Amino acid sequence: MKQEVKSVAGKEIEVVQNIFDENDRIALETKETLENLGVYVVNIMGAPGAGKTSSIISMIRNLRGEKVYVIEGDIESDIDTVKLKELGIDTIQINTKGACHLDAPIIQNSLQELTIDKPGILFIENIGNLVCPAEFQIGEHIKMLICSAAEGSDKPYKYPLAFEKADVILLTKCDLKEFVDFDDEFFLKGIRGLNKSVPVFEVNAKNGQGFQQVATWLKNRIS
Amino acid sequence: MKQEVKSVAGKEIEVVQNIFDENDRIALETKETLENLGVYVVNIMGAPGAGKTSSIISMIRNLRGEKVYVIEGDIESDIDTVKLKELGIDTIQINTKGACHLDAPIIQNSLQELTIDKPGILFIENIGNLVCPAEFQIGEHIKMLICSAAEGSDKPYKYPLAFEKADVILLTKCDLKEFVDFDDEFFLKGIRGLNKSVPVFEVNAKNGQGFQQVATWLKNRIS
Repeated sequence: MKQEVKSVAGKEIEVVQNIFDENDRIALETKETLENLGVYVVNIMGAPGAGKTSSIISMIRNLRGEKVYVIEGDIESDIDTVKLKELGIDTIQINTKGACHLDAPIIQNSLQELTIDKPGILFIENIGNLVCPAEFQIGEHIKMLICSAAEGSDKPYKYPLAFEKADVILLTKCDLKEFVDFDDEFFLKGIRGLNKSVPVFEVNAKNGQGFQQVATWLKNRIS
Repeated sequence: MKQEVKSVAGKEIEVVQNIFDENDRIALETKETLENLGVYVVNIMGAPGAGKTSSIISMIRNLRGEKVYVIEGDIESDIDTVKLKELGIDTIQINTKGACHLDAPIIQNSLQELTIDKPGILFIENIGNLVCPAEFQIGEHIKMLICSAAEGSDKPYKYPLAFEKADVILLTKCDLKEFVDFDDEFFLKGIRGLNKSVPVFEVNAKNGQGFQQVATWLKNRIS
């Protein structure tokens, strides 16, 4: 989405083309810088409580031999960063203090705090929001959409942009499917209407189900 | 939140005080108009898949004798409106086509489509987003926050504004608590740190648990 028109109190504020262009320019710069260091960047998007941090931890467990860095985006709190650091994962925290998404300048600035000493994967956990993050490039090679089975099977229809832009989708908390009458066919039909070829992995961070396949898919992308 | 500063591509766009004032002015106008018609307005906020529509349906089932109107806010689709209309509920649909929250002008305009023939309750289902809707008044008497147990117990810490502004909180999908290691004490501690007196109801739309209590609480507010 190159242009955004926000309606606030009846007045339209046009966030003009060149501001989005500027964001994209910085995102490309970040991507190139990290590419030169051998770092592959994954922008992790999803609703609050979709299981983004748990998915990152489960992927790392299955990415043996790969160096992994994490940037944690949250409006407030460092709960997830503490959790990741306890597991020995190089993590830095961004608190947006109200802002509903990460953008390219925020990521570019935060990289100054991250010591990149060898090639690997950088997971950037975006703000928990199924709407706004999909509009902003931040320097990623791919966008990974995390969607919990507990959210229900109608999400592609209601939040199409995130599903349209995703390069890979993880359907998390699959053990809860039976309790929420999750409709696999309806969910996949919604995705395919927006994004013909995106791979969809069913996962469960509680028992690790499906994350070996995700890690293999990721490794194939990088190599 | 009276002022919002958005950082896009390193440039700060200041959405100035008077635009938020204008939104609040229109919200107050809407509230007064509806109050004169004997209509009590509930702004329903929550993350995607929190169970907002299911909670509306369960509340209506327990609000016998009350006339109920619904405005359904979605980025895309009319899935929930179709569901509500099938149940005989007077519902109109707003599609924001990308915008991440409802605001006062959108609601004021949409009211022209709603036939209000007697006093009652108007439920306005906001966009599924735990961040942006909390910043905008839309003409409500109260804000109802819907939070699913499946989202985990750390949500008040990560998305404080929605919890701070809520007049009532529904913890939905309580049957899933045991599967996600939901920590009641941590969840409530987070809420109480932001909002000392907000009532919190535990509900389950699948079997109706807790909704009689919510309906009674609502009726007491109105009368």
